[in-house]
Amino acid sequence: MAMKGNLIVGQSGGPTAVINSSLAGVIKASWKAGIRRIYGMHYGIEGLLQEDIVDIEDYITSGQDLSLLKRTPSAFLGTCRYKLPPVEGHEDVYEKIFDILDKKNIEFFLYNGGNDSMDTIKMLSDYAITHNKKQKFMGIPKTIDNDLPMTDHCPGYGSSAKYIATSMKEIIRDNESYGVSKPTICIVEIMGRHAGWLTATAALSKDIDCSGPDLIYLPEVTFDIDDFIARIKKLAETKKSIVVAVSEGLKTADGKFVCELGTVNDHVDAFGHKQLAGTASYLANRVTAETGLKSRYIEFSSLQRCASHLASRVDADEAYNVGYLAAEAAFNGETGKMITIEVKSREPYVETYNSFDIHEVANIERKVPKKWIINDGTYVSDEYLEYARPFIIGSIQPYTAGGLPTHLTMKKKRK
Amino acid sequence: MAMKGNLIVGQSGGPTAVINSSLAGVIKASWKAGIRRIYGMHYGIEGLLQEDIVDIEDYITSGQDLSLLKRTPSAFLGTCRYKLPPVEGHEDVYEKIFDILDKKNIEFFLYNGGNDSMDTIKMLSDYAITHNKKQKFMGIPKTIDNDLPMTDHCPGYGSSAKYIATSMKEIIRDNESYGVSKPTICIVEIMGRHAGWLTATAALSKDIDCSGPDLIYLPEVTFDIDDFIARIKKLAETKKSIVVAVSEGLKTADGKFVCELGTVNDHVDAFGHKQLAGTASYLANRVTAETGLKSRYIEFSSLQRCASHLASRVDADEAYNVGYLAAEAAFNGETGKMITIEVKSREPYVETYNSFDIHEVANIERKVPKKWIINDGTYVSDEYLEYARPFIIGSIQPYTAGGLPTHLTMKKKRK
Repeated sequence: MAMKGNLIVGQSGGPTAVINSSLAGVIKASWKAGIRRIYGMHYGIEGLLQEDIVDIEDYITSGQDLSLLKRTPSAFLGTCRYKLPPVEGHEDVYEKIFDILDKKNIEFFLYNGGNDSMDTIKMLSDYAITHNKKQKFMGIPKTIDNDLPMTDHCPGYGSSAKYIATSMKEIIRDNESYGVSKPTICIVEIMGRHAGWLTATAALSKDIDCSGPDLIYLPEVTFDIDDFIARIKKLAETKKSIVVAVSEGLKTADGKFVCELGTVNDHVDAFGHKQLAGTASYLANRVTAETGLKSRYIEFSSLQRCASHLASRVDADEAYNVGYLAAEAAFNGETGKMITIEVKSREPYVETYNSFDIHEVANIERKVPKKWIINDGTYVSDEYLEYARPFIIGSIQPYTAGGLPTHLTMKKKRK
Repeated sequence: MAMKGNLIVGQSGGPTAVINSSLAGVIKASWKAGIRRIYGMHYGIEGLLQEDIVDIEDYITSGQDLSLLKRTPSAFLGTCRYKLPPVEGHEDVYEKIFDILDKKNIEFFLYNGGNDSMDTIKMLSDYAITHNKKQKFMGIPKTIDNDLPMTDHCPGYGSSAKYIATSMKEIIRDNESYGVSKPTICIVEIMGRHAGWLTATAALSKDIDCSGPDLIYLPEVTFDIDDFIARIKKLAETKKSIVVAVSEGLKTADGKFVCELGTVNDHVDAFGHKQLAGTASYLANRVTAETGLKSRYIEFSSLQRCASHLASRVDADEAYNVGYLAAEAAFNGETGKMITIEVKSREPYVETYNSFDIHEVANIERKVPKKWIINDGTYVSDEYLEYARPFIIGSIQPYTAGGLPTHLTMKKKRK
């Protein structure tokens, strides 16, 4: 079967370790369906608006290429953070997009991202329906933040979880190695401004060979600094090594981000620029100031979203599947939907896939259920662990050369 | 052959990903020599002084245990930062140590660490000779800083290099993924207060599939902030993604650490504590203040010394070998020496081992040769890359359970 229309796929928002597995799924489904041209938006919708479009088969032509693509971190096509304006008053933007799509005979439009990206799918599919356009628009979920609704979890989350849990085990070991001197407090900062899904993964490190973090603070709960310091003091009475996982998005009762507290005096450096401390660095300083104990901080920073060398097999497979199924759904005439993951059984792990009306997904942020946050907001429950454990199972061994992982690059294959 | 005397081994200084491979080598050599009791200092010499001594065969009794030990990050026995005082005026300290050793019939004393630890071996072996003690003292090199003299390189360095180079490849990919908007400058901070060996490893990321960092700054060269900003501005004219590797130990011409510059106004927070910014965070703020460009910073922190999931095979094997050979040398009556690595050929890689008088090693810090620092102090040369490339070859796959690496813990095996 050969389709008449072409396909375009874009990647959007913060990259993940498996965002390219979804791209691989889209390409494979397109090959199977006999799509003539598989286009890629270079740097997402922002690139598309500048007609920066690539022909994916300039770079990827074989199953071997797909295997390396799956092992390549970050967005192969490039990404953007761009929210489409409302149609009213910005008809020109929409006309431009559809002109570009029509010019390239693009019938299938796939967009891989989080909340904002699903909003893009919603706006475009609504516009297509109301303006009688032929294009089909499908959303492919992706976010390390795991905050998309309607899906059990999001591709990208599992690999970040595996990175965080693996690193936490190693950090806890490292922190425990000094035992004779005074206790050392290590505060680890994890991404997630509004939802604590990623910070919760720190608890996965707890096992027979690892005590796990002592405290875990999610942004779903108001952060009480005095209570935090009191808990550290209490722990320090019996423990030499104290490790705490904190979300970058912690807020105090007055609504301020903890990471903003370090600049209360509006301190600016010699060049007029505020020195912003992170949440963990602020808290580490505060702990030392109030307890006299040694403290340090670790920020996982972008490593937690790009460490493809630690990608989870379950996560990579699911990312591939949602990409594949989104393309297939578009070929079957579906539009204005996002593929979702439903978990039929957690032990053994069995998942299945559905598609959901994009209006029920876009712009809605799902948070960690309050019932899963325990110990007065300082840990996550066994129910959370049962939920998350399957996502980090298995690994995708990188292909290596000279001891380092190799990645697929945008070097043209054919002329 | 069964030896009459017992052995004690200690780990000291900052942990590495392969410090336990050296411990495995010591244990294996001791088994082969028929040592009756293999003791471990719990938390290094500091623990020994408190008679905190463990019987290693309470935890490790088989080749399987040794395999898991090699895959376990950080110091299995615990570590310390403790410098022995001079003998004169502190005879009691030395008498106490030798009393403890005699009480346990310990004849062989092995210490695994960096400069300070080799000083410990020097002091103890000198004392033993001048006081007619039977004990033999051997040093096992270990430091991610790679700053020990007389040895081509130090066990621990290769695995940190592999972690840094792998992460740099992933970070550069991540930073390149935003392409339409303004350039983004990412500044990565790497350990090494006085020597730039570890920062130099960032250059290993450069390959056919990775452009590598744009600039690399080692502490061996005085850091000129104005020149740095000018280079960033120049790069930003043609590049969207700029990644810079900086050593935590960078100093300006007036001898100040860059990381101290963020507190020029003696800013203290509400609790009287200085907020110390790191080198990378200070420079990222400074870049944005002076260029208006987006910047971010990443600190590898203790991850670069504890990521055993990325341990290098060459490094782990060499760590094992220096441990094994140090024990064997002690059994053969050698004392006051450190095992060193000599590289016979880099391509193919062939190494051999020697032992060196500890007086030529202790307290001497080896820096990166000036001739290997090029481009006005902003990069490292191909000669450096040829030197370092063999150290990251191969990997030790972790044993895993539930998707995470498993580690050996101090749980007693026998009663």
